[in-house]
Amino acid sequence: MAELKNRQWLLAARPSGMIKESDFRWNESAVAALGDGQVLVRNLAFSFDPTQRGWMSMDTYMPAIPVGQVMKAGTVGQVVESRRPGFAKGDLVNGLFGWEDYTVSGGEGLMGLQKLPAGTDPILALSIFGTTGLTAYFGTLALGQVKAGETFVVSGAAGATGSVSGMIAKIKGCRVVGIAGGREKCGWLTKEAGFDAAIDYKNEKVGAALKRHCPKGIDVYFDNVGGEILDHTLARLANGARVVLCGAISQYNDIGTKLPTGPRNYFNLIMHGARMEGFLVFHFAKRYPEAIADMQKWYGQGKLKNQVDLQHGLENAPKTIIRLFTGANFGKQLLKLADPQ
Amino acid sequence: MAELKNRQWLLAARPSGMIKESDFRWNESAVAALGDGQVLVRNLAFSFDPTQRGWMSMDTYMPAIPVGQVMKAGTVGQVVESRRPGFAKGDLVNGLFGWEDYTVSGGEGLMGLQKLPAGTDPILALSIFGTTGLTAYFGTLALGQVKAGETFVVSGAAGATGSVSGMIAKIKGCRVVGIAGGREKCGWLTKEAGFDAAIDYKNEKVGAALKRHCPKGIDVYFDNVGGEILDHTLARLANGARVVLCGAISQYNDIGTKLPTGPRNYFNLIMHGARMEGFLVFHFAKRYPEAIADMQKWYGQGKLKNQVDLQHGLENAPKTIIRLFTGANFGKQLLKLADPQ
Repeated sequence: MAELKNRQWLLAARPSGMIKESDFRWNESAVAALGDGQVLVRNLAFSFDPTQRGWMSMDTYMPAIPVGQVMKAGTVGQVVESRRPGFAKGDLVNGLFGWEDYTVSGGEGLMGLQKLPAGTDPILALSIFGTTGLTAYFGTLALGQVKAGETFVVSGAAGATGSVSGMIAKIKGCRVVGIAGGREKCGWLTKEAGFDAAIDYKNEKVGAALKRHCPKGIDVYFDNVGGEILDHTLARLANGARVVLCGAISQYNDIGTKLPTGPRNYFNLIMHGARMEGFLVFHFAKRYPEAIADMQKWYGQGKLKNQVDLQHGLENAPKTIIRLFTGANFGKQLLKLADPQ
Repeated sequence: MAELKNRQWLLAARPSGMIKESDFRWNESAVAALGDGQVLVRNLAFSFDPTQRGWMSMDTYMPAIPVGQVMKAGTVGQVVESRRPGFAKGDLVNGLFGWEDYTVSGGEGLMGLQKLPAGTDPILALSIFGTTGLTAYFGTLALGQVKAGETFVVSGAAGATGSVSGMIAKIKGCRVVGIAGGREKCGWLTKEAGFDAAIDYKNEKVGAALKRHCPKGIDVYFDNVGGEILDHTLARLANGARVVLCGAISQYNDIGTKLPTGPRNYFNLIMHGARMEGFLVFHFAKRYPEAIADMQKWYGQGKLKNQVDLQHGLENAPKTIIRLFTGANFGKQLLKLADPQ
């Protein structure tokens, strides 16, 4: 194996504003020799997530990726060689690996090294049954505490987490309103994903549309975007409302340049006895099995749909992450390198 | 009674920015005749609260006070004449009455008309056992959910609600840090009120001081001020922190002129799985008796101290409310008109 070539994308620079392709640098090198306790993994597919913008710039819930090191992504791969007990050639695994053909892992890092059941579909494992699906599950149920008859609003509604959160709220009997960009995404929300209404923030006034679609106010708002849309929803809260803070993609490209304006209407939390609560999905790690069991049941019943935006080829990794921030993606953003063998 | 003269302060104008004395207008008129179901009350003492700034400008949890009408305050008074069953001359009562010598009440308005036990001290009833004490109680316990050993930070710490919230957190075993303006207030917090530390925001860098006094981060932050101090605390949250939104006095004089900047560090709620929750004390009205019983017990044990800033004379009402917004008050701001007879 010593002569196995690895192709990689390294972080070339801390981005300023919008991510650019030049923030990454292509590199080719030999795969390192395996040590005891390590596996050599051939990477099959990568997950792209808004939170990765943070990893590129600063210490967050994990240290910033060092400039000059390989860029990271949630990955499903297949073991090529193992010197780690319990892992064998051919096993499917996941972890927070690199933007590269091969990763040597000893189980380090935020996600460690998990073995997946034989026959797992890497695409499903990285989307609806992966971090983004779990994020939707815990955000909607544990924080949002949705109840039948309530009005549930989600932004980034055609995205990986937003779409699943809306479908879960629908399963629980809520009236569900999604905010997304463009007619195609909004059409998908109401025609395919079962949302009651969709607001096209690129072509509608969000405040007026929320007033129209949420005449009794918003009971739960699942926020993926921050910024002005968060303010519009805060202006329409029902008494006792829960605002679930999942992300703020509209603000991420300001990281490293300016501190974003905060939610200017936050004072409505006082007027309406409402709460705004944040979370990272890792906080719920002990409850993943129950969540995945629920999600698999709903998926099998056709109540959850998995919308994936699948790109191909390691060489396209920078272009693919940029899709998230331009809103070009439609559903979970994945990059496929290879099929399992 | 028909010729009884009433002296009043009317709201003269919706304030722009800081409240001015000219926002109020002195008026003298005859007291109206009593109708069935009404009582004539001689007002003994008024409570002044930051929330009154909102009443002057806009509809909040109650309609704005109309320009030209009498200004309102939480009041303890004594019945002079009654045409209301269950109320007799000499009874002590409270309600949301006017800035005037006499109020005719039929129990209307947000606080209605409550009879107080004979011998009630109007000063105590408007301070530690009144709205501000209850606000401290429910904010600290129901929202803050303070636990022994946690770090509790409160701003406006020498104010009516802030001081009581800190003392309650101390009773519950927290390490308590208060933020207040000036050496006198800060000295009182640590020497008299039993706080573990005080930060003088007028003479210290709040961010650096929080870092020094809260080495493990802030578990509960009770916010009375909003603005930059809220941002400094959000930057120091511990995992699972609760931010209790009680008020934002630093922002109130912007009402009607500009929307305040929101909490720019709100994203830390995500990083730390933390929540920010608002409330109005009226949301807890059913639990007032249990709260007052606890507070009376702690007050009797000397664990709660009641710090009152008592001004005198109806003619000084405008000057007295302004004290709240310049920070001149030290403890609960009250205005006394007369003793019970």
